[in-house]
Amino acid sequence: MTEKGITPRGENYSQWYLDIIERAELAENSSVRGCMVIKPYGYAIWEKIQKGLDKMIKESGVENAYFPLFIPKSFLSREASHIKGFAKECAIVTHHRLKETEDGKGVEVDPESKLEEELIVRPTSETIMYDTFSRWITSWRDLPLKLNQWANIVRWEKRTRPFLRTTEFLWQEGHTVHSTQKEAKEEVLGRLAMYTEFARQYLAMDMYFGKKSESEKFAGAVDTYGVEAMMQDGKALQFGTSHNLGQNFSKVFNIQYTDKKGELKYPWQTSWGVSTRMVGALVMAHSDDNGLVLPPSIAPVQVVLVPIFKDLNKEKIIRYTKDVYKEITRKIDNVKIDERDFVSVGFKFNEWEKKGIPIRVEIGEKEMKEGAVVLVRRDTLEKRNVKYGNVLDEVVLLLEEIQSSLYEKSKELLISKTHRIEEYKEFKKVFSENKGFALANWCGSKECEENIKYETKATTRCLRTEGEGVLGKCIYCGKESTEEWIFAKSY
Amino acid sequence: MTEKGITPRGENYSQWYLDIIERAELAENSSVRGCMVIKPYGYAIWEKIQKGLDKMIKESGVENAYFPLFIPKSFLSREASHIKGFAKECAIVTHHRLKETEDGKGVEVDPESKLEEELIVRPTSETIMYDTFSRWITSWRDLPLKLNQWANIVRWEKRTRPFLRTTEFLWQEGHTVHSTQKEAKEEVLGRLAMYTEFARQYLAMDMYFGKKSESEKFAGAVDTYGVEAMMQDGKALQFGTSHNLGQNFSKVFNIQYTDKKGELKYPWQTSWGVSTRMVGALVMAHSDDNGLVLPPSIAPVQVVLVPIFKDLNKEKIIRYTKDVYKEITRKIDNVKIDERDFVSVGFKFNEWEKKGIPIRVEIGEKEMKEGAVVLVRRDTLEKRNVKYGNVLDEVVLLLEEIQSSLYEKSKELLISKTHRIEEYKEFKKVFSENKGFALANWCGSKECEENIKYETKATTRCLRTEGEGVLGKCIYCGKESTEEWIFAKSY
Repeated sequence: MTEKGITPRGENYSQWYLDIIERAELAENSSVRGCMVIKPYGYAIWEKIQKGLDKMIKESGVENAYFPLFIPKSFLSREASHIKGFAKECAIVTHHRLKETEDGKGVEVDPESKLEEELIVRPTSETIMYDTFSRWITSWRDLPLKLNQWANIVRWEKRTRPFLRTTEFLWQEGHTVHSTQKEAKEEVLGRLAMYTEFARQYLAMDMYFGKKSESEKFAGAVDTYGVEAMMQDGKALQFGTSHNLGQNFSKVFNIQYTDKKGELKYPWQTSWGVSTRMVGALVMAHSDDNGLVLPPSIAPVQVVLVPIFKDLNKEKIIRYTKDVYKEITRKIDNVKIDERDFVSVGFKFNEWEKKGIPIRVEIGEKEMKEGAVVLVRRDTLEKRNVKYGNVLDEVVLLLEEIQSSLYEKSKELLISKTHRIEEYKEFKKVFSENKGFALANWCGSKECEENIKYETKATTRCLRTEGEGVLGKCIYCGKESTEEWIFAKSY
Repeated sequence: MTEKGITPRGENYSQWYLDIIERAELAENSSVRGCMVIKPYGYAIWEKIQKGLDKMIKESGVENAYFPLFIPKSFLSREASHIKGFAKECAIVTHHRLKETEDGKGVEVDPESKLEEELIVRPTSETIMYDTFSRWITSWRDLPLKLNQWANIVRWEKRTRPFLRTTEFLWQEGHTVHSTQKEAKEEVLGRLAMYTEFARQYLAMDMYFGKKSESEKFAGAVDTYGVEAMMQDGKALQFGTSHNLGQNFSKVFNIQYTDKKGELKYPWQTSWGVSTRMVGALVMAHSDDNGLVLPPSIAPVQVVLVPIFKDLNKEKIIRYTKDVYKEITRKIDNVKIDERDFVSVGFKFNEWEKKGIPIRVEIGEKEMKEGAVVLVRRDTLEKRNVKYGNVLDEVVLLLEEIQSSLYEKSKELLISKTHRIEEYKEFKKVFSENKGFALANWCGSKECEENIKYETKATTRCLRTEGEGVLGKCIYCGKESTEEWIFAKSY
């Protein structure tokens, strides 16, 4: 373990992740099984994500709304594969009242408050929303309908890990209804593009996207598309999904509209979402053995000023630091001064490094005398001495540099660790040696997919070449195939 | 019922409220008992509220965080009066899995998935948060701790009404921990001031605030303070509350800190919140028989431009309308053009009136030729002909005028319908004739409070004169009292 209390990545990647979450004060386990407490710093990152993505969603003509937390059991059951997918992980509300126990020492569930029909805490909102849509949609004029909801979701997971997989999580779920299949398909792909764009622009992450295999698709969808990022250990993290629901739900929820010719039709639907899992992806993407590394676009604090003072020069140094603060905040909003006098300078440096603040500005007696400051960039820990008059320009430039350099690194990792494979022997080696992703043809049979998973722990992540076709042989059975898939071990 | 499908206030106030909610497309009932669907327009208003209030909360040094939706039954039970207050309205999760029924035709709760300890869907988060706080707080350096959470809440209500009382609702809950009783008390009062300021500035509503009586206070609090607004029918609507929790929770959750002298102490706590109920208050505060009336500061759309065209002049009129749009959006963000050609102009006017858009801009052939527009303000329906060159200035001015005039009207209503009463006979008359609020001395006895409620349906809303003292006689028993209370029928 490092002096920062972080297990090095090379030693134990999984523990490294948990250490970062703890040391950067992002989240912690709660007393409720599988549910985490998102701490202020972690929540501030989520708020930045929300703000950026919400803007993109609204600009694309989608409105926000809010639907109930509870779903009647009968609704969830209506679409056969939907209920099959979620039945085993439902939090079920059965009663609505507690009463005093007979001995008067505690409370117990009042059996007389049993609900006629059980309510499921939403594991996703298709069914409760589409029940409503069936009343909202009657004519072609009501289409397309495009709604989004920011909400909490509950899935009773067996094994949980902060942000990556928790019983309760926060997300956004977009739901759209279209008059044609073509328009719905475009929507599904458009959302993939939106998520990828968001990841690149804000999170400085590059990723693959494409159709998922039958076995990995959303319960109730015709097709699911996923966005897959590569973590530093070469594993894949599914970052977001976009589902083509076809008419599966419109038929069972009886959503119908009259088209321009006066005919009654079932519309075509999509749903798409990303969750607090993104915070986990972000942590894993850029961080190092010193702690979190945040891209400036998503950092709640972009620049921290650390005045280095003793009792004697404190006043002067603080005054100079405030001048620097004023200068920087002419263009940068998220700047903080760390004036604490009950912790050491080393402690402060450590803390801001652990929290991944993109730029630390060190200001001591020497810097003040020279009319300068020292800028330390978090990603490379490289230092620059900068004159007071240039500090704003340099900070602006450096933030841009950090943002693009993190993205380039992410892209470089993705490319360098993705291996086009022709032979199963080599394929197995990629995964036994944790070399990253494999790009290989697959015949599409469930049997090959299962055997590969059993033998290598790698699963199909997404189809790389929809509609194009890359001639080759199935990596497992050798049958001719035109589909090239990304395979990876995944979170 | 008016041509807009709205029952006049004078005829049936309660139905008028429901009609506005429906016609302005704010919300509707869902298929889940007592839970509403917040429609896009209603949610956009809530987002404006969130944005304004969140800014105030953050500027006051509070950070956002997120705690679990579920609360173990044993946590909720720890503080005796807390559980007493919430036991009867809990949604209780008892199982975590569904399974196929034996006939294979449906799903049922899997009895083998019964939880060891039931989980309560949060009716408020004191207990789950303070369990965590007990681990976060050890030293005086950790205080004050000030957190806020935006979340959904469930209380199993018997009778529900959209926004005003629903089984699930959205809110913010602030929670603070202090080293002294004095600081906690200041926090409680500061939050009252914040809510009042928010209501005045954004919602154009005036209101009373003060301490609640014992019978009306929060389950687990030492004291509860409330903000009480007057609706147009003279009834009170509790708008927000701020609780002085004393050491009630810190003692049962064992939150302790070491003070500067090294002594172990229990800190003092507060909690405070407002909810989607505010949307209901806003609707009732300003609306009229034509529909919703929104103050500009909270309106998702502040100005709507309605071009009035025929096929022949459509292109020209639209072009002119877009010029006007460009001009107005130089300073105003939330402007919309209604270009629809499949509904009539009358339909459009009606729709925007129902939705309470502060300013409608009418642009027809006549206006275009004169190089002018017609501005119609929603609150008074008054029209002004304005030259193109003045349109931006006039719109800016008019928005300010509407905002302040709505506030003045609200203040005027509050003052004119609050009656200082000395005699019980007169007191009864105030409520039998629905004249508004009564300001009267009360001795503080539960008996008088209950008798008054039984005989007049009015309850104590809040103490007007904490610490000051207004000598008088209890309105019910005639005993000398120095406390002047607001009495009202309430929502």
